[in-house]
Amino acid sequence: MGTSEERHAEPATRDRLLAAAAELIREHGYAGTSLQMIADRLGFRKGAIYHHFRARDEILAALIGPVLDGLAEIVTDAEAQPSVTARAERMISGYAELAADNRAMVSILRGDPAVLEFIRGQPQWSGLVNRQMTLLAAAHPGPGGRVRAAMVLAGMSAAADPAVQNPPGIDLSAELAQAARQLLGLRTPTPN
Amino acid sequence: MGTSEERHAEPATRDRLLAAAAELIREHGYAGTSLQMIADRLGFRKGAIYHHFRARDEILAALIGPVLDGLAEIVTDAEAQPSVTARAERMISGYAELAADNRAMVSILRGDPAVLEFIRGQPQWSGLVNRQMTLLAAAHPGPGGRVRAAMVLAGMSAAADPAVQNPPGIDLSAELAQAARQLLGLRTPTPN
Repeated sequence: MGTSEERHAEPATRDRLLAAAAELIREHGYAGTSLQMIADRLGFRKGAIYHHFRARDEILAALIGPVLDGLAEIVTDAEAQPSVTARAERMISGYAELAADNRAMVSILRGDPAVLEFIRGQPQWSGLVNRQMTLLAAAHPGPGGRVRAAMVLAGMSAAADPAVQNPPGIDLSAELAQAARQLLGLRTPTPN
Repeated sequence: MGTSEERHAEPATRDRLLAAAAELIREHGYAGTSLQMIADRLGFRKGAIYHHFRARDEILAALIGPVLDGLAEIVTDAEAQPSVTARAERMISGYAELAADNRAMVSILRGDPAVLEFIRGQPQWSGLVNRQMTLLAAAHPGPGGRVRAAMVLAGMSAAADPAVQNPPGIDLSAELAQAARQLLGLRTPTPN
């Protein structure tokens, strides 16, 4: 079996590597997570990781990339809406769903300074935070607009963290969106 | 001059060390900040740091300790209030003021996993997050109480981050408290 085939032959191992990396990053931060620690957690030799990822940043990109690409779609779609209110509403409902569907990942994206540093270096993702802030702050005129926007974004991410113990059966996405609307003074949209 | 005197003789140097450490931790995370990096930023030899701090954790404790001690006072005072509403209101107004007065520090405390790991190991501070969550969630009955409480805490910290560009002259503490009250459905208290 050639090297190239080996790289793609074991999706289960690749997934286990990503899951172990996500766990360690949540515990120790990205800067505090080494390839050696990931290998140790799985009982692998460190060299085994290189069959799947060439570098630590490649693991991080594989973890957070899909969520950030999803976020970029939501932001672009929100920006295309016809009014301030519709833009903020699209941003809120999209982000609430994304956060509820990717609870562990948004908690990594939320506050880890080393992860944010990595994102700032990636042109396709680096502008996303400002674009979201602009969409949300516009919906709350007055000096407190950016305070509200920052609270919406950081608040939804933090409230989606798996460490927050919610009652069973809660509709997390709906709760997040409803709280965000209240912060910005938006009405709950009627279903169409 | 003896060693003990040397340790206390240069408050300016100690403050410069702490300021450089805070900057680096905000940029790279605590796990990504070494004593060598702190020394390099100030043009010191690494050994010079040991006149002031015996270990990296001592620098972190000196940075976040005063804020966490202030937070512990607020939480204890809030818990002593006579009603659910008064407890949440005391928590909100106290935290809003603390965050507005310590903007860079609350942003370090908010999301850096390595900092949170350090705090979990310190018995005098480790219970603070849960105590705050309990005080705030009680003010919003129903399944979304913990979502709201998490949004209040993480949201106020994030909105106080110096990176959030607010208009000049904004009363940050008042804006934070007002947004938090709205999230929990609390009335603005009348001044006494």
